[in-house]
Amino acid sequence: MNSELKPLSAIGEFDLIQRYFHNLTAQQGVELGIGDDAAVVSFEANSQSRLVVATDSLVADIHFPLCSAAYDIARRSLCVNLSDLAAMGAIPRWFTLALNLPQHLAVDEWLAGFSRGLGEIANDHNCALIGGDVSRGNLALTITIIGQVPADEMLTRGGAKPGDHLYVTGTLGDGAAALWLMSAESNDPMDLRLREHFYAPIPRIKEGIVLRDLATACIDISDGLLSDLAHICLKSSVGAEINLSRLPVHSYLKTNFANFFLEWALSGGDDYELCFTVPSHRVTEIDRLIRQGQIDATPIGKITAGDDIALVSESGRTLNDKHFGKYRGYTHFA
Amino acid sequence: MNSELKPLSAIGEFDLIQRYFHNLTAQQGVELGIGDDAAVVSFEANSQSRLVVATDSLVADIHFPLCSAAYDIARRSLCVNLSDLAAMGAIPRWFTLALNLPQHLAVDEWLAGFSRGLGEIANDHNCALIGGDVSRGNLALTITIIGQVPADEMLTRGGAKPGDHLYVTGTLGDGAAALWLMSAESNDPMDLRLREHFYAPIPRIKEGIVLRDLATACIDISDGLLSDLAHICLKSSVGAEINLSRLPVHSYLKTNFANFFLEWALSGGDDYELCFTVPSHRVTEIDRLIRQGQIDATPIGKITAGDDIALVSESGRTLNDKHFGKYRGYTHFA
Repeated sequence: MNSELKPLSAIGEFDLIQRYFHNLTAQQGVELGIGDDAAVVSFEANSQSRLVVATDSLVADIHFPLCSAAYDIARRSLCVNLSDLAAMGAIPRWFTLALNLPQHLAVDEWLAGFSRGLGEIANDHNCALIGGDVSRGNLALTITIIGQVPADEMLTRGGAKPGDHLYVTGTLGDGAAALWLMSAESNDPMDLRLREHFYAPIPRIKEGIVLRDLATACIDISDGLLSDLAHICLKSSVGAEINLSRLPVHSYLKTNFANFFLEWALSGGDDYELCFTVPSHRVTEIDRLIRQGQIDATPIGKITAGDDIALVSESGRTLNDKHFGKYRGYTHFA
Repeated sequence: MNSELKPLSAIGEFDLIQRYFHNLTAQQGVELGIGDDAAVVSFEANSQSRLVVATDSLVADIHFPLCSAAYDIARRSLCVNLSDLAAMGAIPRWFTLALNLPQHLAVDEWLAGFSRGLGEIANDHNCALIGGDVSRGNLALTITIIGQVPADEMLTRGGAKPGDHLYVTGTLGDGAAALWLMSAESNDPMDLRLREHFYAPIPRIKEGIVLRDLATACIDISDGLLSDLAHICLKSSVGAEINLSRLPVHSYLKTNFANFFLEWALSGGDDYELCFTVPSHRVTEIDRLIRQGQIDATPIGKITAGDDIALVSESGRTLNDKHFGKYRGYTHFA
């Protein structure tokens, strides 16, 4: 990347963080700094556990509709952060919340709903709010979540090998479908399942724990399958091949959005499912776990020795692009 | 507090957090939840150390002038967060940053300056940036800082006893003086020392470590001496007596702001000094450390058995108010 000449307005969050904040991480106890779903640090020598730390901001009108209920904003914010821990194979323990609140929302109805939503998700995942800061400002919130993972068992983006099988949890495209139904362009009523998926995407914590021992790489799908798989490919120095017919898409999407569901599944984002890779000699184990219902996942392709992501239809290759950048999801400074 | 009837618009951040977020903290490993400068949690059973976690947002035009240089915004943000750890007697280790950035500031000049400022302070205090998130939005940032303190040695707001001596580090009123000089009402040039104090207030980490063994209570002065001392009094169920003539105020303020410096020292905020209490039988030790230059602190009064803060001039009592609320500093939803 010709970073000196490229106007910053054309780069995304990922590049921006890499360029300006990456050199501030080389210090003691940092096993994995900026550049994965979460950081992994060693709190004490000889400890059998590692701290896993993730931080995510959600801004009104970018990460959720401004008109969302406080209860839903709270649930979505915590779920999205928990998803980052899931992708590391970590269990959540504590979180902090910084809330920027406009004056007109500093009322009991809004705050009580927000507190209830936050409490429900925190309770579901046994993590405790330990720090809070409330400021006046446009509606936005930042959650920093701290989890725990056994030393040397965390999942990262960097371990995929050619020949590994590629999986995703749950279904894809639901996040994009929900966003579409919420948009002004849509006249369709919101499907309840999609609404719930958008505001409370299930953090795949349990799946992450199961995968600690099985997966060679893992990421959560926040920006879209292609965009997030590209991160695995970059970090692991591999390519990938996706069988389009295998992508798990809910029948509601296939029926109602026949022209959109494939694009949404590939690039829609906001799914918060896990995308992970499993070595071929352990595929029988993961497939057994899937059959037994212990993990809700679907095989969608393979890791290759190349450096591109190939999309394979039943009749042959349909797309093959070396420029991972084009798969990027939402770009904050485009 | 008659919480049902009081309009929320009249309550401050402290009450808001207490009311809506306090009940979300009762879970495993939380030794000190919301309500102190930072939370203290136990990561592993039998560990000799505790994690100390603080989170603070800074919003443009509220916590710093919108026109501040990126370098200065970064320094101030990290220093303010480090100050919370200092008040706990903790040493900093890692931090995360969530940055909301308007489109016009997503340019190399701004980001490079910001990165440089953040790096300088991080380097001074040996703490590593481990997580970052950049979103488009009005300029605001949230830092969550994670530190470490030996188990049972953390400083809290809750241990002051009647008869304890009251101290503050450094000088008071400088934060308010800097804000005044930056305001539109002032035509005076900015004093360099004050400017530096505002943008890079020295986090009293070293002092906090020395005080682990000596202080019974400690808080950092972000909202103003009276407001923050009131937190110690509330948590410790004590009162206090301040000798006004002992308040450490820099000669520049006394000379140039004769009519303001006392109010600024008492209620100005933004000083980020430590206010702490020491049992009377250990006063000789702290006074020796002060004489030896190991800690820059001044005795300013005593803890009393009452529930109010008395301000004592050389000629006698001048103010005595049971309503700690009136000492509150900046109120976000007033």
